[in-house]
Amino acid sequence: MVETIRWKGNKVELIDQRLLPGRKVYVACESDKDIYDAIKTMKIRGAPAIGVAAAYGVYLGLRYSRTKKLGVFEKELKRTVSYLASSRPTAVNLFWALSRMENIVKAGREMNICDIKDALLAEAHEILDEDNKICRAIGRHGKQLLAKGSVVLTHCNAGGLATASYGTALGVIFSSRSKIKKVFVDETRPVLQGARLTAWELVTEGIPAVLICDNMAASILAKGEIDVIIVGADRIAANGDTANKIGTYNLAVLANYHKIPFYVAAPVSTFDLAIKSGKSIPIEERDHSEIKKIGECCLAPKKIDVYNPAFDITPAKLITAIITERGAIRSPNSARVKGILGKKKKLKV
Amino acid sequence: MVETIRWKGNKVELIDQRLLPGRKVYVACESDKDIYDAIKTMKIRGAPAIGVAAAYGVYLGLRYSRTKKLGVFEKELKRTVSYLASSRPTAVNLFWALSRMENIVKAGREMNICDIKDALLAEAHEILDEDNKICRAIGRHGKQLLAKGSVVLTHCNAGGLATASYGTALGVIFSSRSKIKKVFVDETRPVLQGARLTAWELVTEGIPAVLICDNMAASILAKGEIDVIIVGADRIAANGDTANKIGTYNLAVLANYHKIPFYVAAPVSTFDLAIKSGKSIPIEERDHSEIKKIGECCLAPKKIDVYNPAFDITPAKLITAIITERGAIRSPNSARVKGILGKKKKLKV
Repeated sequence: MVETIRWKGNKVELIDQRLLPGRKVYVACESDKDIYDAIKTMKIRGAPAIGVAAAYGVYLGLRYSRTKKLGVFEKELKRTVSYLASSRPTAVNLFWALSRMENIVKAGREMNICDIKDALLAEAHEILDEDNKICRAIGRHGKQLLAKGSVVLTHCNAGGLATASYGTALGVIFSSRSKIKKVFVDETRPVLQGARLTAWELVTEGIPAVLICDNMAASILAKGEIDVIIVGADRIAANGDTANKIGTYNLAVLANYHKIPFYVAAPVSTFDLAIKSGKSIPIEERDHSEIKKIGECCLAPKKIDVYNPAFDITPAKLITAIITERGAIRSPNSARVKGILGKKKKLKV
Repeated sequence: MVETIRWKGNKVELIDQRLLPGRKVYVACESDKDIYDAIKTMKIRGAPAIGVAAAYGVYLGLRYSRTKKLGVFEKELKRTVSYLASSRPTAVNLFWALSRMENIVKAGREMNICDIKDALLAEAHEILDEDNKICRAIGRHGKQLLAKGSVVLTHCNAGGLATASYGTALGVIFSSRSKIKKVFVDETRPVLQGARLTAWELVTEGIPAVLICDNMAASILAKGEIDVIIVGADRIAANGDTANKIGTYNLAVLANYHKIPFYVAAPVSTFDLAIKSGKSIPIEERDHSEIKKIGECCLAPKKIDVYNPAFDITPAKLITAIITERGAIRSPNSARVKGILGKKKKLKV
């Protein structure tokens, strides 16, 4: 399995995903600025992976702090956390991880600064380790939902590259390998995470996969050649409404029309209970050049206006189940989400 | 308005659409082989434009024939027609235009070969002239269906570049200019006819337009920001089922779910009454490189399998109306299609 982000030689190393599938290159991040840039420019992407990176970012931003005063250190923490939080607006795992790091400092108020720093690094390691276990648990729960011989469609990349290593939607596919006949992969315009990343992961793992353009899924569904759709998530509201890569909502409508199950695979950290419904989830709009250019190729007239939302909202009513590390939430709604999120936090792994 | 294909200096000149929007270059076609290549490699594309090109292709293939015997000439005609018919399989206007050219030879059996050749060229000119008038008539009928202030979504290019000059779906938009607030343009992967051609036509004509990726339409529809979808067609079965650029069926499902009208704009020559339903329309599969590469950029791993259908089928039940030069066929079915196609053939223009 791919190792998307790791701690090595006293720094973070992460795969620059913009270079895939051509080259697999680890870049070093030695400061919070390096991490901010890596998230902002999408060297690393995928909600859980962003969470892991941000956690390390907090440690990297504070490790060379010279203060011995807790008050000053807490101000530095606040500044670092705000800075990292501004890297991307939609994936809530970013804020969740930052909040866990803040809690370490809160809990360590009796310790000296040096020990707090050690605890911060330990917490980042813990978040990374947990991520791997969570993805495998999601995979196990997801496997129970799939029939033998399933043809699956997935969108974007919710794979090892979107997490520390194993993946959420692809985690389900990896765990269900014996049940999977074939995976259709949406290329996922404009940044082509499906063509570049998911295709690469599936080829690497030897799982039969077919790349298609995003507008082709409907006609394959009409022929009855897809049994189930599985995607990841960037933020899930308290009622189960789900923000995920642009194009996800389109697939949910198609699944509904063609009467096949539509699953969202995501860790509990992707839920944002402070947000009641999908309407309040902020949607990032990205640069027009993502649509107008690929490499040095201009794909459209210079003067054309562009709309480039990075995510869309799938209402809970179109989701068959949300697969978490604590089990699947079928026909998700506020009560059922609360039911799963209220469970004790310790993971059975 | 753009002049997509024209007769000039005893040869066909057509815009090499693969170079748009960067460069507008006319290439000369002096033989049936030149026309075949232009269609096959998509220098020219769009069902009506392919029909016009094929008509000229027949003349170019026969104009230097040295025979004076009708029987030999008819054999040469048959060979030329078969050759041109094999350039692309889905757009029926190709076969319709070839059949019109064959009829000229049949009707001219009393004439000498030289006069038959003249009649063939005259018929190709006639097909081109008619195409322009037909598109304007489609535009007028379509305008009646649009409300003032409409926001329209279109897919692929059913514009001047898909016809001799004015367009079918874009013909409706050009004719309804005073009623149109904005046009969303699907980029239309993999060949990007929306981003390259439709965007170029709309910018050139000064119509407010916004380019989006194909997977974004759903989320804009969910916000209620699109009033109507208008597309072209490559072949329409006797019952109204419509083959058009891949992604069209997806939009029809979305229009149905979001309860907005879905219109197909196409000349009568796009109907194929020999085909009862969409199931029997042949769908062209194109080269994998269209999806895996853009220019010199590799977008996906070399080893990934690809599925690349150029068209899909939209069942008639998802089509609000088919707008032809003879009027709109609302809620199309076999009887209503027959009703319009049975009308006398002379165009009111």
